[in-house]
Amino acid sequence: MSYELYYWDGIQGRGEFVRLALEDAGAEYQDVARMSGGSSKIAAFLEGRNGHQRPFAPPFLKDGDIVVSHVANILAYLGPRLDLVPAGEAERIFAHGLQLTITDFVTEIHDTHHPLGIDDYYEDQKDEAKARSSRFLSSRLPKFMSYFEAVLSANPTGTAHAVGSRASYVDLSLFQVMEGLRYAFPNTMKHFEEEIPLLVSLHGRIGERAGIRNYLASERRIPFNEMGIFRHYPELDQRD
Amino acid sequence: MSYELYYWDGIQGRGEFVRLALEDAGAEYQDVARMSGGSSKIAAFLEGRNGHQRPFAPPFLKDGDIVVSHVANILAYLGPRLDLVPAGEAERIFAHGLQLTITDFVTEIHDTHHPLGIDDYYEDQKDEAKARSSRFLSSRLPKFMSYFEAVLSANPTGTAHAVGSRASYVDLSLFQVMEGLRYAFPNTMKHFEEEIPLLVSLHGRIGERAGIRNYLASERRIPFNEMGIFRHYPELDQRD
Repeated sequence: MSYELYYWDGIQGRGEFVRLALEDAGAEYQDVARMSGGSSKIAAFLEGRNGHQRPFAPPFLKDGDIVVSHVANILAYLGPRLDLVPAGEAERIFAHGLQLTITDFVTEIHDTHHPLGIDDYYEDQKDEAKARSSRFLSSRLPKFMSYFEAVLSANPTGTAHAVGSRASYVDLSLFQVMEGLRYAFPNTMKHFEEEIPLLVSLHGRIGERAGIRNYLASERRIPFNEMGIFRHYPELDQRD
Repeated sequence: MSYELYYWDGIQGRGEFVRLALEDAGAEYQDVARMSGGSSKIAAFLEGRNGHQRPFAPPFLKDGDIVVSHVANILAYLGPRLDLVPAGEAERIFAHGLQLTITDFVTEIHDTHHPLGIDDYYEDQKDEAKARSSRFLSSRLPKFMSYFEAVLSANPTGTAHAVGSRASYVDLSLFQVMEGLRYAFPNTMKHFEEEIPLLVSLHGRIGERAGIRNYLASERRIPFNEMGIFRHYPELDQRD
Protein backbone atom coordinates (compact mmCIF):
# COMPACT_ATOMS: atom_id res chain seq x y z
CA MET A 1 0.00 0.00 0.00
CA SER A 2 1.35 3.42 -0.85
CA TYR A 3 1.77 6.30 1.57
CA GLU A 4 -0.58 9.25 1.27
CA LEU A 5 0.94 12.68 1.85
CA TYR A 6 -1.49 15.48 2.66
CA TYR A 7 -0.12 18.93 2.07
CA TRP A 8 -1.15 22.12 0.30
CA ASP A 9 -0.55 22.28 -3.43
CA GLY A 10 1.40 25.08 -5.06
CA ILE A 11 4.27 25.39 -2.60
CA GLN A 12 7.14 23.27 -1.35
CA GLY A 13 6.44 24.36 2.20
CA ARG A 14 6.82 22.01 5.13
CA GLY A 15 5.62 19.12 3.00
CA GLU A 16 8.87 19.25 1.06
CA PHE A 17 10.85 17.76 3.94
CA VAL A 18 8.62 14.69 3.72
CA ARG A 19 8.68 14.55 -0.08
CA LEU A 20 12.48 14.52 -0.11
CA ALA A 21 12.55 11.45 2.15
CA LEU A 22 9.94 9.61 0.09
CA GLU A 23 11.65 10.54 -3.19
CA ASP A 24 15.14 9.69 -2.00
CA ALA A 25 13.96 6.24 -0.95
CA GLY A 26 11.92 5.71 -4.10
CA ALA A 27 8.86 5.05 -1.94
CA GLU A 28 5.44 4.77 -3.51
CA TYR A 29 3.28 7.68 -2.40
CA GLN A 30 0.37 9.81 -3.44
CA ASP A 31 0.59 13.57 -3.11
CA VAL A 32 -3.08 13.90 -2.31
CA ALA A 33 -3.51 17.64 -2.90
CA ARG A 34 -2.32 17.19 -6.48
CA MET A 35 -4.93 14.57 -7.26
CA SER A 36 -8.54 15.09 -8.21
CA GLY A 37 -10.60 16.11 -5.19
CA GLY A 38 -7.46 16.48 -3.11
CA SER A 39 -8.43 19.67 -1.31
CA SER A 40 -11.65 18.25 0.02
CA LYS A 41 -9.81 15.13 1.18
CA ILE A 42 -7.50 17.34 3.22
CA ALA A 43 -10.46 19.29 4.58
CA ALA A 44 -12.21 16.10 5.71
CA PHE A 45 -9.28 15.31 8.02
CA LEU A 46 -8.92 18.85 9.34
CA GLU A 47 -12.63 19.04 10.10
CA GLY A 48 -12.57 15.78 12.02
CA ARG A 49 -14.67 13.83 9.55
CA ASN A 50 -12.07 11.05 9.26
CA GLY A 51 -11.91 9.88 12.83
CA HIS A 52 -10.80 11.33 16.12
CA GLN A 53 -7.08 11.47 15.32
CA ARG A 54 -7.46 14.82 13.73
CA PRO A 55 -4.41 16.83 12.60
CA PHE A 56 -4.13 20.53 13.37
CA ALA A 57 -2.66 21.33 9.95
CA PRO A 58 -0.89 19.77 6.98
CA PRO A 59 1.46 18.11 6.38
CA PHE A 60 0.20 14.79 7.62
CA LEU A 61 0.82 11.29 6.34
CA LYS A 62 -1.59 8.40 6.13
CA ASP A 63 -0.24 4.86 6.16
CA GLY A 64 -3.13 2.43 6.30
CA ASP A 65 -4.96 3.24 9.53
CA ILE A 66 -2.16 5.36 10.93
CA VAL A 67 -2.28 9.14 10.63
CA VAL A 68 0.93 11.00 11.45
CA SER A 69 1.01 14.77 11.70
CA HIS A 70 3.91 17.24 11.87
CA VAL A 71 7.04 16.92 9.75
CA ALA A 72 9.31 15.64 12.52
CA ASN A 73 6.74 13.03 13.61
CA ILE A 74 6.32 11.89 10.01
CA LEU A 75 10.07 11.60 9.46
CA ALA A 76 10.53 9.71 12.73
CA TYR A 77 7.85 7.33 11.49
CA LEU A 78 9.25 6.96 7.98
CA GLY A 79 12.93 6.89 8.96
CA PRO A 80 13.15 3.21 9.90
CA ARG A 81 10.75 2.19 7.12
CA LEU A 82 12.73 3.99 4.41
CA ASP A 83 16.12 3.16 5.92
CA LEU A 84 16.80 6.84 6.49
CA VAL A 85 17.84 6.78 10.14
CA PRO A 86 20.33 4.70 12.11
CA ALA A 87 19.00 1.65 13.94
CA GLY A 88 20.16 2.46 17.47
CA GLU A 89 17.80 4.10 19.95
CA ALA A 90 20.21 6.84 21.03
CA GLU A 91 20.94 7.83 17.43
CA ARG A 92 17.25 7.84 16.51
CA ILE A 93 16.47 10.09 19.44
CA PHE A 94 19.33 12.36 18.46
CA ALA A 95 18.09 12.46 14.85
CA HIS A 96 14.61 13.39 16.02
CA GLY A 97 16.04 16.15 18.20
CA LEU A 98 17.98 17.52 15.24
CA GLN A 99 14.84 17.47 13.12
CA LEU A 100 12.99 19.39 15.84
CA THR A 101 15.74 21.98 15.82
CA ILE A 102 15.29 22.23 12.05
CA THR A 103 11.56 22.68 12.71
CA ASP A 104 12.27 25.63 14.99
CA PHE A 105 14.70 27.09 12.48
CA VAL A 106 12.13 26.81 9.69
CA THR A 107 9.57 28.64 11.84
CA GLU A 108 12.04 31.46 12.39
CA ILE A 109 12.82 31.58 8.68
CA HIS A 110 9.11 31.82 7.93
CA ASP A 111 8.58 34.55 10.49
CA THR A 112 11.15 36.81 8.82
CA HIS A 113 8.42 37.74 6.33
CA HIS A 114 5.50 37.42 8.77
CA PRO A 115 6.65 38.77 12.14
CA LEU A 116 3.19 40.01 13.13
CA GLY A 117 1.39 36.82 12.17
CA ILE A 118 0.15 34.86 9.21
CA ASP A 119 -3.27 36.48 8.92
CA ASP A 120 -1.89 39.64 7.29
CA TYR A 121 -0.07 39.96 3.99
CA TYR A 122 3.67 40.50 3.85
CA GLU A 123 3.07 43.89 2.26
CA ASP A 124 1.23 44.98 5.40
CA GLN A 125 4.11 44.11 7.73
CA LYS A 126 7.08 44.99 5.57
CA ASP A 127 8.79 47.33 8.03
CA GLU A 128 8.51 44.82 10.83
CA ALA A 129 9.74 42.12 8.45
CA LYS A 130 12.84 44.16 7.71
CA ALA A 131 13.51 44.58 11.42
CA ARG A 132 13.04 40.90 12.13
CA SER A 133 15.04 39.74 9.10
CA SER A 134 18.02 41.89 9.92
CA ARG A 135 18.14 40.43 13.44
CA PHE A 136 17.58 36.95 12.09
CA LEU A 137 20.39 37.16 9.55
CA SER A 138 22.85 38.68 12.01
CA SER A 139 22.16 36.43 14.93
CA ARG A 140 19.79 33.51 14.55
CA LEU A 141 20.86 32.19 11.14
CA PRO A 142 24.54 31.99 12.20
CA LYS A 143 23.55 30.37 15.48
CA PHE A 144 21.49 27.62 13.86
CA MET A 145 23.86 27.01 10.95
CA SER A 146 26.94 26.94 13.14
CA TYR A 147 25.19 24.43 15.35
CA PHE A 148 24.51 22.08 12.43
CA GLU A 149 28.05 22.60 11.17
CA ALA A 150 29.33 21.60 14.62
CA VAL A 151 27.12 18.52 14.62
CA LEU A 152 28.58 17.41 11.29
CA SER A 153 32.07 18.15 12.55
CA ALA A 154 31.56 16.10 15.71
CA ASN A 155 30.10 13.00 14.08
CA PRO A 156 32.46 10.21 15.21
CA THR A 157 31.88 8.30 11.94
CA GLY A 158 32.97 11.22 9.74
CA THR A 159 31.77 14.65 8.76
CA ALA A 160 29.63 13.65 5.79
CA HIS A 161 26.44 13.03 7.77
CA ALA A 162 24.60 14.56 10.70
CA VAL A 163 23.78 11.23 12.36
CA GLY A 164 25.44 7.88 11.82
CA SER A 165 27.56 6.82 8.86
CA ARG A 166 24.95 7.03 6.10
CA ALA A 167 22.47 9.60 4.82
CA SER A 168 19.45 10.13 7.06
CA TYR A 169 16.31 12.21 6.79
CA VAL A 170 18.19 14.86 8.77
CA ASP A 171 20.72 15.24 5.95
CA LEU A 172 17.89 15.53 3.44
CA SER A 173 16.27 18.25 5.54
CA LEU A 174 19.55 20.13 5.89
CA PHE A 175 19.86 19.98 2.10
CA GLN A 176 16.42 21.59 1.81
CA VAL A 177 17.29 24.27 4.35
CA MET A 178 20.42 25.14 2.34
CA GLU A 179 18.38 25.21 -0.87
CA GLY A 180 15.80 27.48 0.67
CA LEU A 181 18.24 29.87 2.31
CA ARG A 182 20.18 30.26 -0.93
CA TYR A 183 16.93 31.14 -2.66
CA ALA A 184 15.65 33.52 0.00
CA PHE A 185 18.86 35.18 1.13
CA PRO A 186 21.45 34.84 -1.66
CA ASN A 187 23.40 37.90 -0.58
CA THR A 188 23.75 36.79 3.01
CA MET A 189 24.50 33.19 2.09
CA LYS A 190 27.18 34.19 -0.39
CA HIS A 191 29.17 35.69 2.46
CA PHE A 192 28.20 33.21 5.14
CA GLU A 193 28.87 29.96 3.33
CA GLU A 194 32.60 30.07 3.90
CA GLU A 195 31.83 29.55 7.58
CA ILE A 196 29.87 26.35 6.97
CA PRO A 197 31.96 24.23 4.57
CA LEU A 198 30.58 20.92 5.82
CA LEU A 199 26.99 22.00 5.19
CA VAL A 200 27.92 23.24 1.72
CA SER A 201 29.56 19.93 0.99
CA LEU A 202 26.61 17.95 2.37
CA HIS A 203 24.24 19.96 0.21
CA GLY A 204 26.26 19.10 -2.89
CA ARG A 205 26.37 15.39 -2.13
CA ILE A 206 22.68 15.07 -1.27
CA GLY A 207 21.78 16.83 -4.52
CA GLU A 208 23.66 14.12 -6.40
CA ARG A 209 21.81 11.19 -4.89
CA ALA A 210 19.86 9.41 -7.61
CA GLY A 211 16.42 9.78 -6.04
CA ILE A 212 16.93 13.43 -5.24
CA ARG A 213 18.47 14.31 -8.61
CA ASN A 214 15.55 12.69 -10.44
CA TYR A 215 13.05 14.43 -8.21
CA LEU A 216 14.60 17.87 -8.60
CA ALA A 217 14.53 17.48 -12.39
CA SER A 218 10.87 16.37 -12.36
CA GLU A 219 7.69 18.40 -12.47
CA ARG A 220 6.89 17.15 -8.99
CA ARG A 221 9.43 19.62 -7.59
CA ILE A 222 7.58 22.93 -7.43
CA PRO A 223 9.96 25.90 -7.78
CA PHE A 224 10.43 28.14 -4.76
CA ASN A 225 7.98 31.01 -4.81
CA GLU A 226 6.67 33.86 -2.67
CA MET A 227 3.82 31.82 -1.20
CA GLY A 228 6.03 29.39 0.68
CA ILE A 229 8.34 29.43 3.67
CA PHE A 230 11.48 30.49 1.85
CA ARG A 231 10.68 33.72 0.00
CA HIS A 232 13.04 35.93 -1.90
CA TYR A 233 12.36 39.55 -1.00
CA PRO A 234 15.61 41.39 -1.78
CA GLU A 235 14.77 44.10 0.76
CA LEU A 236 14.93 41.49 3.54
CA ASP A 237 18.30 40.07 2.51
CA GLN A 238 20.28 42.64 4.51
CA ARG A 239 22.26 42.10 7.65
CA ASP A 240 22.80 44.86 10.19
CA MET B 1 19.15 5.80 38.26
CA SER B 2 17.35 9.12 38.35
CA TYR B 3 16.62 11.28 35.31
CA GLU B 4 18.57 14.49 34.88
CA LEU B 5 16.64 17.46 33.54
CA TYR B 6 18.69 20.28 32.07
CA TYR B 7 16.88 23.57 31.85
CA TRP B 8 17.48 27.19 32.82
CA ASP B 9 16.79 28.13 36.41
CA GLY B 10 14.47 30.97 37.38
CA ILE B 11 11.64 30.33 34.95
CA GLN B 12 9.07 27.63 34.28
CA GLY B 13 9.67 27.94 30.56
CA ARG B 14 9.65 24.95 28.28
CA GLY B 15 11.20 22.81 31.00
CA GLU B 16 7.92 22.96 32.91
CA PHE B 17 6.19 20.61 30.47
CA VAL B 18 8.79 17.99 31.38
CA ARG B 19 8.70 18.74 35.11
CA LEU B 20 4.93 18.22 35.20
CA ALA B 21 5.29 14.73 33.72
CA LEU B 22 8.09 13.77 36.11
CA GLU B 23 6.24 15.21 39.11
CA ASP B 24 2.89 13.67 38.20
CA ALA B 25 4.51 10.25 37.96
CA GLY B 26 6.55 10.73 41.13
CA ALA B 27 9.70 9.98 39.13
CA GLU B 28 13.09 10.51 40.67
CA TYR B 29 14.88 13.34 38.89
CA GLN B 30 17.48 16.00 39.34
CA ASP B 31 16.78 19.52 38.16
CA VAL B 32 20.41 20.13 37.25
CA ALA B 33 20.32 23.93 36.93
CA ARG B 34 19.15 24.18 40.54
CA MET B 35 22.07 22.15 41.85
CA SER B 36 25.55 23.32 42.63
CA GLY B 37 27.51 23.88 39.42
CA GLY B 38 24.38 23.35 37.36
CA SER B 39 24.97 26.13 34.85
CA SER B 40 28.37 24.86 33.85
CA LYS B 41 26.97 21.35 33.46
CA ILE B 42 24.42 22.72 30.99
CA ALA B 43 27.14 24.65 29.18
CA ALA B 44 29.28 21.53 28.80
CA PHE B 45 26.52 19.86 26.79
CA LEU B 46 25.74 22.93 24.69
CA GLU B 47 29.39 23.41 23.85
CA GLY B 48 29.78 19.81 22.75
CA ARG B 49 32.07 18.77 25.58
CA ASN B 50 29.85 15.84 26.53
CA GLY B 51 29.91 13.86 23.33
CA HIS B 52 28.65 14.33 19.82
CA GLN B 53 24.94 14.19 20.62
CA ARG B 54 24.86 17.84 21.37
CA PRO B 55 21.57 19.65 22.04
CA PHE B 56 20.83 23.01 20.43
CA ALA B 57 19.22 24.37 23.59
CA PRO B 58 17.63 23.33 26.89
CA PRO B 59 15.50 21.58 27.89
CA PHE B 60 17.18 18.25 27.45
CA LEU B 61 17.00 15.10 29.51
CA LYS B 62 19.74 12.66 30.34
CA ASP B 63 18.86 9.08 31.16
CA GLY B 64 22.02 7.05 31.55
CA ASP B 65 23.80 7.31 28.19
CA ILE B 66 20.76 8.69 26.38
CA VAL B 67 20.41 12.43 25.78
CA VAL B 68 17.00 13.61 24.60
CA SER B 69 16.45 17.18 23.48
CA HIS B 70 13.26 19.14 22.79
CA VAL B 71 10.17 18.93 24.96
CA ALA B 72 8.12 16.76 22.61
CA ASN B 73 11.00 14.33 22.12
CA ILE B 74 11.52 14.11 25.88
CA LEU B 75 7.83 13.49 26.54
CA ALA B 76 7.66 10.84 23.80
CA TYR B 77 10.61 9.17 25.54
CA LEU B 78 9.21 9.47 29.05
CA GLY B 79 5.58 8.70 28.16
CA PRO B 80 5.85 4.89 28.13
CA ARG B 81 8.34 4.87 31.03
CA LEU B 82 6.09 6.99 33.26
CA ASP B 83 2.85 5.40 32.06
CA LEU B 84 1.72 8.73 30.65
CA VAL B 85 0.75 7.69 27.13
CA PRO B 86 -1.43 4.90 25.73
CA ALA B 87 0.32 1.71 24.65
CA GLY B 88 -0.90 1.51 21.04
CA GLU B 89 1.28 2.83 18.21
CA ALA B 90 -1.46 4.92 16.56
CA GLU B 91 -2.36 6.61 19.84
CA ARG B 92 1.30 7.29 20.65
CA ILE B 93 1.83 8.87 17.28
CA PHE B 94 -1.32 10.93 17.76
CA ALA B 95 -0.15 12.03 21.23
CA HIS B 96 3.21 13.10 19.81
CA GLY B 97 1.47 15.07 17.06
CA LEU B 98 -0.67 16.83 19.66
CA GLN B 99 2.43 17.68 21.68
CA LEU B 100 4.05 19.13 18.56
CA THR B 101 0.99 21.29 18.02
CA ILE B 102 1.35 22.46 21.62
CA THR B 103 5.00 23.22 20.81
CA ASP B 104 3.95 25.44 17.92
CA PHE B 105 1.32 27.12 20.06
CA VAL B 106 3.86 27.83 22.79
CA THR B 107 6.20 29.41 20.24
CA GLU B 108 3.39 31.70 19.08
CA ILE B 109 2.55 32.57 22.68
CA HIS B 110 6.19 33.45 23.29
CA ASP B 111 6.40 35.55 20.16
CA THR B 112 3.53 37.79 21.30
CA HIS B 113 6.09 39.62 23.45
CA HIS B 114 9.06 39.11 21.11
CA PRO B 115 7.81 39.48 17.54
CA LEU B 116 11.09 40.89 16.24
CA GLY B 117 13.25 38.27 17.88
CA ILE B 118 14.69 37.22 21.21
CA ASP B 119 17.87 39.27 21.05
CA ASP B 120 16.07 42.52 21.91
CA TYR B 121 14.19 43.38 25.08
CA TYR B 122 10.41 43.46 25.15
CA GLU B 123 10.56 47.19 25.89
CA ASP B 124 12.29 47.74 22.55
CA GLN B 125 9.58 46.00 20.54
CA LYS B 126 6.49 46.97 22.48
CA ASP B 127 4.53 48.44 19.56
CA GLU B 128 5.16 45.38 17.42
CA ALA B 129 4.27 43.17 20.39
CA LYS B 130 0.91 44.93 20.68
CA ALA B 131 0.25 44.39 16.98
CA ARG B 132 1.19 40.73 17.14
CA SER B 133 -0.69 40.06 20.39
CA SER B 134 -3.90 41.57 19.14
CA ARG B 135 -3.80 39.31 16.06
CA PHE B 136 -2.81 36.34 18.18
CA LEU B 137 -5.65 36.78 20.64
CA SER B 138 -8.26 37.36 17.94
CA SER B 139 -7.25 34.60 15.61
CA ARG B 140 -4.53 32.17 16.63
CA LEU B 141 -5.47 31.56 20.26
CA PRO B 142 -9.08 30.66 19.36
CA LYS B 143 -7.84 28.45 16.51
CA PHE B 144 -5.47 26.44 18.70
CA MET B 145 -7.78 26.23 21.71
CA SER B 146 -10.80 25.26 19.64
CA TYR B 147 -8.71 22.54 18.06
CA PHE B 148 -7.78 21.05 21.43
CA GLU B 149 -11.38 21.38 22.59
CA ALA B 150 -12.47 19.45 19.49
CA VAL B 151 -9.87 16.77 20.17
CA LEU B 152 -11.24 16.29 23.70
CA SER B 153 -14.78 16.27 22.36
CA ALA B 154 -13.97 13.62 19.75
CA ASN B 155 -12.15 11.20 22.04
CA PRO B 156 -14.11 7.94 21.64
CA THR B 157 -13.33 6.94 25.24
CA GLY B 158 -14.81 10.12 26.72
CA THR B 159 -14.07 13.81 26.86
CA ALA B 160 -11.86 13.80 29.94
CA HIS B 161 -8.60 13.17 28.11
CA ALA B 162 -6.93 14.19 24.87
CA VAL B 163 -5.69 10.69 24.02
CA GLY B 164 -6.91 7.38 25.36
CA SER B 165 -8.90 6.78 28.52
CA ARG B 166 -6.38 7.96 31.11
CA ALA B 167 -4.27 11.05 31.72
CA SER B 168 -1.31 11.42 29.37
CA TYR B 169 1.54 13.88 29.09
CA VAL B 170 -0.63 15.75 26.57
CA ASP B 171 -3.24 16.45 29.26
CA LEU B 172 -0.50 17.68 31.59
CA SER B 173 0.79 20.02 28.88
CA LEU B 174 -2.71 21.33 28.17
CA PHE B 175 -3.03 22.03 31.89
CA GLN B 176 0.15 24.08 31.74
CA VAL B 177 -1.01 25.98 28.66
CA MET B 178 -4.25 26.88 30.45
CA GLU B 179 -2.30 27.96 33.54
CA GLY B 180 0.00 30.12 31.47
CA LEU B 181 -2.70 31.72 29.34
CA ARG B 182 -4.72 32.60 32.44
CA TYR B 183 -1.63 34.26 33.87
CA ALA B 184 -0.63 36.09 30.70
CA PHE B 185 -4.01 37.04 29.26
CA PRO B 186 -6.57 37.03 32.10
CA ASN B 187 -8.88 39.48 30.37
CA THR B 188 -9.04 37.52 27.13
CA MET B 189 -9.33 34.17 28.89
CA LYS B 190 -12.15 35.37 31.12
CA HIS B 191 -14.28 35.91 28.02
CA PHE B 192 -12.97 33.01 25.97
CA GLU B 193 -13.22 30.21 28.51
CA GLU B 194 -16.94 29.71 28.01
CA GLU B 195 -16.08 28.44 24.53
CA ILE B 196 -13.73 25.76 25.83
CA PRO B 197 -15.56 24.01 28.70
CA LEU B 198 -13.75 20.69 28.23
CA LEU B 199 -10.33 22.34 28.54
CA VAL B 200 -11.47 24.23 31.63
CA SER B 201 -12.68 20.99 33.15
CA LEU B 202 -9.48 19.14 32.21
CA HIS B 203 -7.42 21.89 33.81
CA GLY B 204 -9.35 21.52 37.05
CA ARG B 205 -8.97 17.76 37.18
CA ILE B 206 -5.25 17.73 36.36
CA GLY B 207 -4.64 20.29 39.09
CA GLU B 208 -6.20 17.88 41.60
CA ARG B 209 -3.96 14.94 40.78
CA ALA B 210 -1.84 14.11 43.80
CA GLY B 211 1.54 14.53 42.14
CA ILE B 212 0.58 17.81 40.51
CA ARG B 213 -1.10 19.23 43.60
CA ASN B 214 1.96 18.48 45.71
CA TYR B 215 4.25 19.95 43.09
CA LEU B 216 2.26 23.16 42.70
CA ALA B 217 2.34 23.66 46.47
CA SER B 218 6.09 23.06 46.66
CA GLU B 219 8.99 25.45 46.25
CA ARG B 220 9.98 23.53 43.14
CA ARG B 221 7.18 25.26 41.24
CA ILE B 222 8.59 28.65 40.28
CA PRO B 223 5.85 31.30 39.97
CA PHE B 224 5.14 32.68 36.51
CA ASN B 225 7.21 35.79 35.86
CA GLU B 226 8.17 38.21 33.09
CA MET B 227 11.28 36.24 32.10
CA GLY B 228 9.42 33.18 30.87
CA ILE B 229 7.18 32.24 27.98
CA PHE B 230 3.90 33.29 29.57
CA ARG B 231 4.26 36.92 30.59
CA HIS B 232 1.61 39.21 31.95
CA TYR B 233 1.85 42.57 30.22
CA PRO B 234 -1.62 44.11 30.60
CA GLU B 235 -1.10 46.24 27.48
CA LEU B 236 -0.87 43.06 25.39
CA ASP B 237 -4.06 41.49 26.76
CA GLN B 238 -6.32 43.26 24.27
CA ARG B 239 -8.18 41.76 21.36
CA ASP B 240 -9.00 43.75 18.25
